[in-house]
Amino acid sequence: MKIARFTVSGGEPRFGIVDETEIVVLVGDPMFVGYETTEERVPLDANVKLLAPVIPRSKVVAVGKNYADHAAEMGGEAPTTPLIFLKPNTSVIGPGDAIQLPRESSQVEHEGELAIVIGSIARDVKKEDYADVVFGYTIANDVTARDIQKADGQWARAKGYDTFCPLGPVIETEFDFSDAAIEVRVDGELRQSGNTNQMIHSIPEIVAFASSVWTLLPGDVILTGTPAGVGPFVDGQKVEISIEGLGLLSNPAKNR
Amino acid sequence: MKIARFTVSGGEPRFGIVDETEIVVLVGDPMFVGYETTEERVPLDANVKLLAPVIPRSKVVAVGKNYADHAAEMGGEAPTTPLIFLKPNTSVIGPGDAIQLPRESSQVEHEGELAIVIGSIARDVKKEDYADVVFGYTIANDVTARDIQKADGQWARAKGYDTFCPLGPVIETEFDFSDAAIEVRVDGELRQSGNTNQMIHSIPEIVAFASSVWTLLPGDVILTGTPAGVGPFVDGQKVEISIEGLGLLSNPAKNR
Repeated sequence: MKIARFTVSGGEPRFGIVDETEIVVLVGDPMFVGYETTEERVPLDANVKLLAPVIPRSKVVAVGKNYADHAAEMGGEAPTTPLIFLKPNTSVIGPGDAIQLPRESSQVEHEGELAIVIGSIARDVKKEDYADVVFGYTIANDVTARDIQKADGQWARAKGYDTFCPLGPVIETEFDFSDAAIEVRVDGELRQSGNTNQMIHSIPEIVAFASSVWTLLPGDVILTGTPAGVGPFVDGQKVEISIEGLGLLSNPAKNR
Repeated sequence: MKIARFTVSGGEPRFGIVDETEIVVLVGDPMFVGYETTEERVPLDANVKLLAPVIPRSKVVAVGKNYADHAAEMGGEAPTTPLIFLKPNTSVIGPGDAIQLPRESSQVEHEGELAIVIGSIARDVKKEDYADVVFGYTIANDVTARDIQKADGQWARAKGYDTFCPLGPVIETEFDFSDAAIEVRVDGELRQSGNTNQMIHSIPEIVAFASSVWTLLPGDVILTGTPAGVGPFVDGQKVEISIEGLGLLSNPAKNR
């Protein structure tokens, strides 16, 4: 099932289940208070804008260097313990929204990633129970100002700018993460090409580890790392991330 | 004016204005939707428990190495640009709540800090306009698992554990930060002693800088750095942080 958050002609955001050609409108909120389906159908046409499928109320957790080939290109080894960091919820934007390039960076890069969306309060979850707390999966771009990342040492600023966490287009509740291709293109040119089967720390391990550090709340999002091929993009370019089974997340870039 | 969030005998959390001997009960929420005073008064007695005066809806921002003597004790120079990082809102606890020491750390340390509480949506705020977006000030403990901080390199985990951000006891809306003593005691022993006049980056600079990176939301909290003297505490000990004009924030420590 593909859950979307959407507006029609700029109206109030609502949730729906996305079909081939239409959206089954929901009442409620699938992550926070439950939902019911309605009889209302909205055609998937130009009046519909998909939004970030979730706005985390607590945190976006991300895992660094979780693909060996990316760890190598960054000049480091993959850590034996998952290396986790945070992005603020103010960095989240939706499909089609512009990634705003800060004036103080001259090297903003894409990092296409599979993202886990948490569905319930989660603390000290065992690996084998990970599925109990996962609502679904979506695509994320862990946008990074590489020059600022190097200057600061800490990654919060370089990865935390407003618009630096595109999410979407939908949350797939029945995604098979064991073998899904991830591809990132900039203006159509293939930049990153990997597969979720190359992750060093698996989804169950990541959920278990993150929930051993801090309580995960419904709507929290966990980015699971990026494969090799990260690189810069500039004003006017378009970054497209596809993950098999999850669709395509496309965002233009523009200077602030 | 001192704003507190409190419960009486375990009832619903409410906001109030704290006097010498009583609390003037408020309706509404001072940071998010405004408030009105009521005729109700609650005596400040043993039935009252003060809570974290704010639960951030977006982020706890913190500034690293903002006192030269602390930067020196950590073996580094103070950065010319504020070094900012994030703690999750799930790390926030209130006065008297226990700091839970994770099993995987053998070196959890106190960092007493002045904290700014944001009162309105803030983006690209000029230094001279900082006061427009500040709701008030409180005390924070930027609790840090020092061994994990060193192991990870990134600070999010070491500083982001549940209970690692005690806040309180109140938010003072008329605090003078130009010259206020900060002291931290562990079981009565003085560990940290500094003054807010020793900050490298001032409050106006910090608000301007943070809001140039990401949008600050009402209820966001900014920790402004710690003076020298950070050190470990263990199960059964009590950490007390006092800032002139803001009161005393006291938290016991216990093993998880």
